[in-house]
Amino acid sequence: MEMGLIGLGRMGGNMAQRIRRAGHTVIGYDRDPELSDVGSLQELVDRLESPRVVWVMVPAGGPTQSVVDELARLLSPGDTVVDGGNSRWTDDEKHAEQLAAGGVGFVDAGVSGGVWGLQNGYALMVGGDREHVERLHPIFEALKPEGPYGYVHAGKVGAGHFAKMVHNGIEYAMMQAYAEGWELLESVDSVTSVREVFRSWQEGTVIRSWLLDLAVDALDEDEHLEKLRGYAEDSGEGRWTVEAAIDHAVPLPAITASLFARFASRQEDSTQMKMIAALRKQFGGHAVESAD
Amino acid sequence: MEMGLIGLGRMGGNMAQRIRRAGHTVIGYDRDPELSDVGSLQELVDRLESPRVVWVMVPAGGPTQSVVDELARLLSPGDTVVDGGNSRWTDDEKHAEQLAAGGVGFVDAGVSGGVWGLQNGYALMVGGDREHVERLHPIFEALKPEGPYGYVHAGKVGAGHFAKMVHNGIEYAMMQAYAEGWELLESVDSVTSVREVFRSWQEGTVIRSWLLDLAVDALDEDEHLEKLRGYAEDSGEGRWTVEAAIDHAVPLPAITASLFARFASRQEDSTQMKMIAALRKQFGGHAVESAD
Amino acid sequence: MEMGLIGLGRMGGNMAQRIRRAGHTVIGYDRDPELSDVGSLQELVDRLESPRVVWVMVPAGGPTQSVVDELARLLSPGDTVVDGGNSRWTDDEKHAEQLAAGGVGFVDAGVSGGVWGLQNGYALMVGGDREHVERLHPIFEALKPEGPYGYVHAGKVGAGHFAKMVHNGIEYAMMQAYAEGWELLESVDSVTSVREVFRSWQEGTVIRSWLLDLAVDALDEDEHLEKLRGYAEDSGEGRWTVEAAIDHAVPLPAITASLFARFASRQEDSTQMKMIAALRKQFGGHAVESAD
Amino acid sequence: MEMGLIGLGRMGGNMAQRIRRAGHTVIGYDRDPELSDVGSLQELVDRLESPRVVWVMVPAGGPTQSVVDELARLLSPGDTVVDGGNSRWTDDEKHAEQLAAGGVGFVDAGVSGGVWGLQNGYALMVGGDREHVERLHPIFEALKPEGPYGYVHAGKVGAGHFAKMVHNGIEYAMMQAYAEGWELLESVDSVTSVREVFRSWQEGTVIRSWLLDLAVDALDEDEHLEKLRGYAEDSGEGRWTVEAAIDHAVPLPAITASLFARFASRQEDSTQMKMIAALRKQFGGHAVESAD
Repeated sequence: MEMGLIGLGRMGGNMAQRIRRAGHTVIGYDRDPELSDVGSLQELVDRLESPRVVWVMVPAGGPTQSVVDELARLLSPGDTVVDGGNSRWTDDEKHAEQLAAGGVGFVDAGVSGGVWGLQNGYALMVGGDREHVERLHPIFEALKPEGPYGYVHAGKVGAGHFAKMVHNGIEYAMMQAYAEGWELLESVDSVTSVREVFRSWQEGTVIRSWLLDLAVDALDEDEHLEKLRGYAEDSGEGRWTVEAAIDHAVPLPAITASLFARFASRQEDSTQMKMIAALRKQFGGHAVESAD
Repeated sequence: MEMGLIGLGRMGGNMAQRIRRAGHTVIGYDRDPELSDVGSLQELVDRLESPRVVWVMVPAGGPTQSVVDELARLLSPGDTVVDGGNSRWTDDEKHAEQLAAGGVGFVDAGVSGGVWGLQNGYALMVGGDREHVERLHPIFEALKPEGPYGYVHAGKVGAGHFAKMVHNGIEYAMMQAYAEGWELLESVDSVTSVREVFRSWQEGTVIRSWLLDLAVDALDEDEHLEKLRGYAEDSGEGRWTVEAAIDHAVPLPAITASLFARFASRQEDSTQMKMIAALRKQFGGHAVESAD
Repeated sequence: MEMGLIGLGRMGGNMAQRIRRAGHTVIGYDRDPELSDVGSLQELVDRLESPRVVWVMVPAGGPTQSVVDELARLLSPGDTVVDGGNSRWTDDEKHAEQLAAGGVGFVDAGVSGGVWGLQNGYALMVGGDREHVERLHPIFEALKPEGPYGYVHAGKVGAGHFAKMVHNGIEYAMMQAYAEGWELLESVDSVTSVREVFRSWQEGTVIRSWLLDLAVDALDEDEHLEKLRGYAEDSGEGRWTVEAAIDHAVPLPAITASLFARFASRQEDSTQMKMIAALRKQFGGHAVESAD
Repeated sequence: MEMGLIGLGRMGGNMAQRIRRAGHTVIGYDRDPELSDVGSLQELVDRLESPRVVWVMVPAGGPTQSVVDELARLLSPGDTVVDGGNSRWTDDEKHAEQLAAGGVGFVDAGVSGGVWGLQNGYALMVGGDREHVERLHPIFEALKPEGPYGYVHAGKVGAGHFAKMVHNGIEYAMMQAYAEGWELLESVDSVTSVREVFRSWQEGTVIRSWLLDLAVDALDEDEHLEKLRGYAEDSGEGRWTVEAAIDHAVPLPAITASLFARFASRQEDSTQMKMIAALRKQFGGHAVESAD
């Protein structure tokens, strides 16, 4: 089938490649003319035959909103928009309503796979009405990994991004689990090769996983990770996961601890620990360290 | 080769089977005469040819200590004892010293694999001096999974159990990660099948793992886990992991949160939350719930 | 001076009393005619002389918004509205803008004091432009405790509610601190009277505080809090504190743990711990508890 | 009455002063001859009349053990030893038994008060048999603050140090509570003076406390604590509190989070966050920061 794809960055570009390989036609649009097949969104829409499918793959928030605004203006009844970016699930309902006003369908698709997706397939978590989702099956088939897994119609509009967001929240805590274990092993003298311990865990253990395989790859490149700073960004979904948990009064201690560990990793000096130091000095005359 | 195996419960019994399948001779001793090949530890020792290898597979703490005490009395210089139970790494040094006094070697082996080990092999994390560890290679080969993984000589005496303990600590936090994500997904209306979301994650995602596969199996048996209580025991290693972290001043927020969640799950009513309720009532006149 | 006060519930009613005691005139409006001095908001506004001061003391969210909407319609340039309820700081800016369109000033006031405020005074944290805040000084003087403390002009519009929100977040973690310590003391045999330990802490210790005094009062009423369930509501500010922290990438581990402990206290059975139990059963054949 | 006091450092020296002020005789021993009234422990024991009272005020662990060993040798039946240092409660039982073998009584006393104790009195939490504790009442009266609080006979041997340990655990979480709130307030633009917010909280709020007063003192010295590093030691009791909680399967999320925040504050770079960075790079090609 034929589709438009807006946003041809690392993620969108690879996805376009994988969809084309499966025999579909992708007309891509990107602000960067070097990457783009068409000169404008208008041209993209003109080139697609009705009923159109347009997949949006741009950063969440403002950029996605602009594209949705423009598509709401350009598209026709019967067309379908897919938001495959990392939008917050709460935006999906707004976008669905906005597009529905013009008879345009909306599907949200959480996409996992990173730099490995082109080769192995992308895991897809999809939300939306059945009629809109079904139109897109050929594309989803092209993107997903082979085999019975890697694709789910998770529920109503927003459910796709919600499921992807929770996936990322789980990912945070799993990464933190390995990281904590690694630091503890590195801290004791009796264990002579933490890397080999990690490697051995890749079979026969309860904690074997793809992330563990990646950890071993990383340790093979740099056994004690001395080339890296202990500094980690977060990309939004972890924060939203905690916020969603708060909305639903669900306790998320491990995922939240993982998010906070990232926040702390980015502070040159800890503001809150200055207060701890100040209080210890006040009540106990404990020695403190002065800022250089 | 030939070895003695003390403790023929679910774990020890299966291990004996796997070792025998590989062509070795296992003489087993258990307090239960129905399971035991010999009538006493003395008889076990008499039946083995010098230099002997005796693998201890009994509960950590008192039971392991009794067996080590008796073996220290019965064995001869050049023999080797393996503790394959879940002993705390701090006990290993004591046992090694106690046995070394009589010229007996000591190896600690953390064993992972649970009910799946008989078929798939057991992951082994081993600590001890090279000379003692090397003698045991044929047995380790028999127990471990096929392929390059599943076995590591982690370091000095104690390193095997330490590595296994950290493995379990990581396991706690990974399980907690999936559990938190599952509860959050179950709490929202828009996601119509959490089980299918979990199933889809088995390929193409960052969080695919053996534990995830097991989660899907569990959900296939009971989609909303309605037949289970939210109640989880802990088996010691999680606690020791946190204690080891405290000894080394390593922050373990996610693993510790996972341990505490288990503690809380076992309380009929939360003592600490009674105090929270009492304070809210005192300062705010907030309504509280009385114990029925 | 003269002021209108909307919302004469437990909090508003007591505040009106304290303001009147200080010699000011309060015209109160409440939906409950038994409590109200006037029949409608229109009548309240008519009765006040220009420039008017109207203090809003109704539940956050919808109720506050309705009152602000109506006041925006009824008030005149030069009047000032104070929101003394528990509004989220993000609402304050919207309300300030909405009212400013009609020349009406806006001040947000976080009020602490609970049932003790009538007697001891209310701590006030205030946000807004200096000109609007200064008009209200006589009222703030009447409400606040005697002495140099208990009142702060914290900053711009929203800063009052933000400071009050953080106050409540700190309160959550302080309550949790005492609650955890109390449970731990109650769990050991060697300590024969936890209540007397708490009582002794009221002088000479680092942890003496008003909350500790309240804890002792509660234990004097019911030494082991046997009449209470370990069940705690949360009132919004704790959630907002964590959300604000996430917005600013500030790690709040203790406050968040306190919030999550409340969430968990309200669950009859823990959904997430069902998953832990299910996984333990899958990989280890561990015994689990079935739901009755 | 008359007593010996071993250890005349900052804490012991001030305590001796306060006891003497109350009219008692204190013979002090310290390894530093400049501080000591006697040349040796032997001389101290010789100078005291039977039945003797000897208060030990030296660092926990090895130093305390040495003194107890020597006192077990030097003292006579009917004498009483008080350990007023920060010993772990598990040491108390050992010491009590060791001394009881020679007919010497043992009392453990947790002492709070820091540099303020000399003036305001020390809070005392005491464990031991009634007969031994009662002998010491005159000394406890001299040390404790005036009024009904600041002293408790908490229970059996060990209960005094256990109660003091829990006090410190609570202290960790209360300090963390204020510290988290302070950092959050410092992170927002709308709040123009966080120090004044803290000052205002000293009356009329739920969170007023002595620690809050100290926080205000600290902020008066250095409004944004710019002269301090965010670096905090921990002194043992926090760790033991968490370990005791683990022994009793009591969840302590806020206190443990506070302890871990201190651990993290002392790391130049976070080992575990290197692993997080490494994994992000592996699966997502996310940019990471290299070590310098």
